Amino acid sequence: MYPSSIQKLIELFSKFPTVGPRTAARFVFYLLGLKKEEAEELTSAISKLRNVKLCKLCFKSFEDEGELCEICQNPARDKSLLCIVEKETDLISIEKTKKYQGLFFIFGGTVPVLKKEDKKKLRADELLVRAKKPEVKEIIIAVNPTTEGEATILYLERLLKPLNKKITRLGRGLPIGAELEYADEETLGSALEGRK
Amino acid sequence: MYPSSIQKLIELFSKFPTVGPRTAARFVFYLLGLKKEEAEELTSAISKLRNVKLCKLCFKSFEDEGELCEICQNPARDKSLLCIVEKETDLISIEKTKKYQGLFFIFGGTVPVLKKEDKKKLRADELLVRAKKPEVKEIIIAVNPTTEGEATILYLERLLKPLNKKITRLGRGLPIGAELEYADEETLGSALEGRK
Amino acid sequence: MYPSSIQKLIELFSKFPTVGPRTAARFVFYLLGLKKEEAEELTSAISKLRNVKLCKLCFKSFEDEGELCEICQNPARDKSLLCIVEKETDLISIEKTKKYQGLFFIFGGTVPVLKKEDKKKLRADELLVRAKKPEVKEIIIAVNPTTEGEATILYLERLLKPLNKKITRLGRGLPIGAELEYADEETLGSALEGRK
Amino acid sequence: MYPSSIQKLIELFSKFPTVGPRTAARFVFYLLGLKKEEAEELTSAISKLRNVKLCKLCFKSFEDEGELCEICQNPARDKSLLCIVEKETDLISIEKTKKYQGLFFIFGGTVPVLKKEDKKKLRADELLVRAKKPEVKEIIIAVNPTTEGEATILYLERLLKPLNKKITRLGRGLPIGAELEYADEETLGSALEGRK
Repeated sequence: MYPSSIQKLIELFSKFPTVGPRTAARFVFYLLGLKKEEAEELTSAISKLRNVKLCKLCFKSFEDEGELCEICQNPARDKSLLCIVEKETDLISIEKTKKYQGLFFIFGGTVPVLKKEDKKKLRADELLVRAKKPEVKEIIIAVNPTTEGEATILYLERLLKPLNKKITRLGRGLPIGAELEYADEETLGSALEGRK
Repeated sequence: MYPSSIQKLIELFSKFPTVGPRTAARFVFYLLGLKKEEAEELTSAISKLRNVKLCKLCFKSFEDEGELCEICQNPARDKSLLCIVEKETDLISIEKTKKYQGLFFIFGGTVPVLKKEDKKKLRADELLVRAKKPEVKEIIIAVNPTTEGEATILYLERLLKPLNKKITRLGRGLPIGAELEYADEETLGSALEGRK
Repeated sequence: MYPSSIQKLIELFSKFPTVGPRTAARFVFYLLGLKKEEAEELTSAISKLRNVKLCKLCFKSFEDEGELCEICQNPARDKSLLCIVEKETDLISIEKTKKYQGLFFIFGGTVPVLKKEDKKKLRADELLVRAKKPEVKEIIIAVNPTTEGEATILYLERLLKPLNKKITRLGRGLPIGAELEYADEETLGSALEGRK
Repeated sequence: MYPSSIQKLIELFSKFPTVGPRTAARFVFYLLGLKKEEAEELTSAISKLRNVKLCKLCFKSFEDEGELCEICQNPARDKSLLCIVEKETDLISIEKTKKYQGLFFIFGGTVPVLKKEDKKKLRADELLVRAKKPEVKEIIIAVNPTTEGEATILYLERLLKPLNKKITRLGRGLPIGAELEYADEETLGSALEGRK
């Protein structure tokens, strides 16, 4: 019912994460209302994403010269700590806490329980090479404590065990704003054990 | 903390309707994961939006030759009925009911209660010219019965009154799935009066 | 884990509509905190519910002398209109609109699609006797337009058809606050047909 | 509009926690539908709450002979640990984890930031007497990490400091099912620091 160029763009936006056809249509009508320069600013910004490189060491995105991102290049960071995260936005969340001075490794996803195909996208081999380096003393697995994440944590622990290094997980407990009455038993149990 | 080309695109996506910085970041990382051809398909589709024209009569988007959209060109539509909607997605919603065979007029928004500036974007002059045509016998104001919409309905009724034509509003009542117990008094009153 | 008298009361409160065990526990601890007189006020109020009678004509609750409720006794009400509702709270909702001056009939529930047993609780026989009276000219079926309610509306229409009286339903349409974009097609179609 | 005995009971139920007038009305109509014996079972259960006593040591409810609840009487519990909770349902939550073998103290609420009056209902004096006992070696403050709870935690720490005993709080961290991306910075920071 929409013109074909609108319909085509609705389809492309519908593939974006969290976007359904109704929101996709709103995006298109928002673009239709933009001035020519504004629309060109957007397409140009999308094209410029091609300049983004991935850090050879941690796989974070960066644009500067060289092969390493600004975190891996920073001599002040503690090279003995390696924190494995699922994706770059998790790395950013941890950076924002300003409580971590070590390095990172972006694993690329969670271990898919069923689809073996998808496992290839994960950086298991790259991780082993990275974690084996003698300066790494502790490996922190900072993966979401969700069902999918738990499978990934177990997988990573098994993968890294032969390295004989200290392997830790994020602490479980009550988050800010939680109520004991609605906490699950495992979380509340961890909060009791982890009291201080 | 992100590279500047990622940061720039997060800002542009954050201006999209319903999108906040977190969702915008997810969009960017989704784009980073696309193949080169897929990203080009998207920028090309955005550029092609420039081919979309607005119908001279109803302001609906279309791409074909000529000055009128496929609805206004269709000789089978009832020219005596003119339905005013706020935006194109509302027109599509009404078309999907398959219960309306008249023509449309896209007003372009709701009447802003405070910002007089924005009123200029609305098509009040174009509407008067359109509605004045002798073949138009009934003008249906199909604007949302929300607070903002009510102000627009009152505005349109006052604007169109001098034309001395039949002016109607959408019927109020209980929607599918509603419960009397939770209906507001005005809606339930309309449902009683509109019983049949 | 709770003392047995607390556990017992949690079980009884858990049978209340919308109440689960956690809310039931909160109710009990609320009661434990009441003064003796306050708790007695509650048990006394529950016991006094036994004084409530059901109107012989419409089955609404009432406490006064006689056999009819204050609505059925009111000579100013229009005896030619009979409005069938599912339950007493729906009657109250309609009374609050102040747009209905006829009489009521509380049907007692919706027609259960599967459980034939429950049908006995509904007042089908009483309704036929009531609706047959010559002064009743129009029967309004004011049942929720939900899936369950629709089955009940069809059932009531079939039940009442042999009486050869005017039978109406509540008007369908857009409720206050609705948006065309999110309305289902049937509701929007009804709103178009019911325009005025 | 309802008979006065119904109206009275709606008012009393509306004072129950989480209950508004609409839910209160549903409760009353639920009660109206009960058999005589069922209604009496309820009023009798409410009256029997008077038999419930509060434990002299921890203020938990119990019904047995004596002055102490089953937890405080249990010789197997570790008397060196005292866990302060806000209310009895929190105590039950902790018991269900089966990870705590110490004793409890029900404080009776959170420290009201504004209303000084309400402070009298809290058991500050009783807590000091209880916590001072020489067998208590560690005091665990198991109060919700909410804004209200934080004020209470600070209050309790200041209150108990002169006793010169080990005072701990529940561990902060990510609960089961959490995602790093949506965790607040303080929680994520605690999860990092509490890694193991």
